[in-house]
Amino acid sequence: MIPLKTLQDRISYAFDSTGFVREPVRLYEPIAYALEQGGKRLRPVLVLMACDLFGGNIEDAVYPAMGLEIFHNFTLLHDDIMDNAPLRRGKETVFQKWDKNTAILSGDTMFVMAYEYVARTDASLLPMVLNLFNDTARMVCEGQQYDMNFESQANITIPDYMMMIRLKTAVLIACSLKLGAIIAKADATHIEKIYDFGIELGLAFQLQDDFLDAFGDTAKFGKAIGGDIATNKKTFLYLKAFELARGETLAILAKYVEGNEITASQKVAGILDIYMELNIREITLLEIEQHHLKALEILHSVDLSPETTNELIGLMQVMLGRER
Amino acid sequence: MIPLKTLQDRISYAFDSTGFVREPVRLYEPIAYALEQGGKRLRPVLVLMACDLFGGNIEDAVYPAMGLEIFHNFTLLHDDIMDNAPLRRGKETVFQKWDKNTAILSGDTMFVMAYEYVARTDASLLPMVLNLFNDTARMVCEGQQYDMNFESQANITIPDYMMMIRLKTAVLIACSLKLGAIIAKADATHIEKIYDFGIELGLAFQLQDDFLDAFGDTAKFGKAIGGDIATNKKTFLYLKAFELARGETLAILAKYVEGNEITASQKVAGILDIYMELNIREITLLEIEQHHLKALEILHSVDLSPETTNELIGLMQVMLGRER
Repeated sequence: MIPLKTLQDRISYAFDSTGFVREPVRLYEPIAYALEQGGKRLRPVLVLMACDLFGGNIEDAVYPAMGLEIFHNFTLLHDDIMDNAPLRRGKETVFQKWDKNTAILSGDTMFVMAYEYVARTDASLLPMVLNLFNDTARMVCEGQQYDMNFESQANITIPDYMMMIRLKTAVLIACSLKLGAIIAKADATHIEKIYDFGIELGLAFQLQDDFLDAFGDTAKFGKAIGGDIATNKKTFLYLKAFELARGETLAILAKYVEGNEITASQKVAGILDIYMELNIREITLLEIEQHHLKALEILHSVDLSPETTNELIGLMQVMLGRER
Repeated sequence: MIPLKTLQDRISYAFDSTGFVREPVRLYEPIAYALEQGGKRLRPVLVLMACDLFGGNIEDAVYPAMGLEIFHNFTLLHDDIMDNAPLRRGKETVFQKWDKNTAILSGDTMFVMAYEYVARTDASLLPMVLNLFNDTARMVCEGQQYDMNFESQANITIPDYMMMIRLKTAVLIACSLKLGAIIAKADATHIEKIYDFGIELGLAFQLQDDFLDAFGDTAKFGKAIGGDIATNKKTFLYLKAFELARGETLAILAKYVEGNEITASQKVAGILDIYMELNIREITLLEIEQHHLKALEILHSVDLSPETTNELIGLMQVMLGRER
């Protein structure tokens, strides 16, 4: 098995050695900027890892893997316009640095590029690869729509939220693993199971992200605590708190959420107190654990080699911040 | 040969009988709205026509043809945001009727749908079809970027303009014809030649559109005269006028373009006078004629059946408003 670090280096090298700028420069410079921001390159690494685990040659997976990373960054570009977000990974977003029109059109072009890279695969695999990517891209768009709908909708439930993060986040994690398995020409059952595993992993990963926003170690998490709380983002934690709060507690929670006449840090501190009172910390950890266990269950239901199973368990540990 | 009207009806039927609305409704309703606006359905009709002319079964081409129409409408959705355009085909644009975020995300989803429809073809043709569509989509994005660049750039030349309309308009016309030929499994030379023919046809078609904005019959053209003139759009006519105007004429032209202290209709009338003085009308018709002739030349350089050649000549006549 190829070590994680080696896979990460392969992907970094692939991006570093590609010149994305060409004419018209005004179109491609923002694309190069967005792709150079780096980030964890999680999705392409998952593609290579799955390809390797199922006995494929990772070189066959590099371009399709890059395609998924380009797609992911395209969605961030357009999401940042929709969310009016000035910063991404500590740097100005494209729409902030240039303008909305640039972010729209450079994003569209990245979407084409994503298809170009994803399609650089064996012709015999192309129908399957393209179906997977089309389905995934459509679901990610639907997830973003639900996410936006939820902002202005009352009575969002936990199942609504889980459906949304499945579409917006989990399907692309699952797609990454499945794409690698397809390129490795894994058998059909393995291909389906690795996808299901990826869904559970993706759900746990997003819930973990929600959790860290409230209870993370700022130094380790890499972003400020309470961003979701300050903006009333309807995360698992928020929805669970409203589900459980009663009487006085509910009244205080609602008051903090309104946030009148208090500072942002008072708001965050106040809501965190209520989260503690309602055991939101433990409930969220339990929910993450449940998806972690479902993922393990799926793994153990397939006849993978013990080595492959172990590698996938290790991957989960890394993604959920439980390094061995 | 299947008559044009029959091909148009087949495409209309395909769109009318497809339900585009699904959950989340907020995402798909604008898509259905955009696709129901109709328009001439020129591009999908060209796909079917080329498929038929090269001996294919048009039923094999219906989904890919719809894909190109969905793609075209996706570009309109995003272009309308960028151009801040309130109306399209006499109805509110999506971003005007809903909002920018909706137009961005519904547009992105249409782009995925375009790929889904285009990909509904014989697996053996998929690599070629996908390459064509990827190249086309990328060029259309580049064309839109040049178009936006030109707005704020001085010294745009006629060759710059021709390069821009080739990317923004002509390649999709050419792609439509080529896609039909590929699906009909035409031979490689025919496939390339019909593309080249489509480029010249597309250029003539766009120049014709520019021409009609200034010199068209409002009733026939279906939109008000002088829209491009009023907004200082750098069309072939505008650029040619600045290329040719000297001394007093240039000074007057520049003053009209600035448009200070005059009404929009005074501006349009004034600039039209200068166009007449500089023979812009005849020069534009001559330019259109040259691309028309090049297209004919390409046709006659291929060993098509006389019937096919005649049909393609007829198509050109229709597209350039010279019905026999």
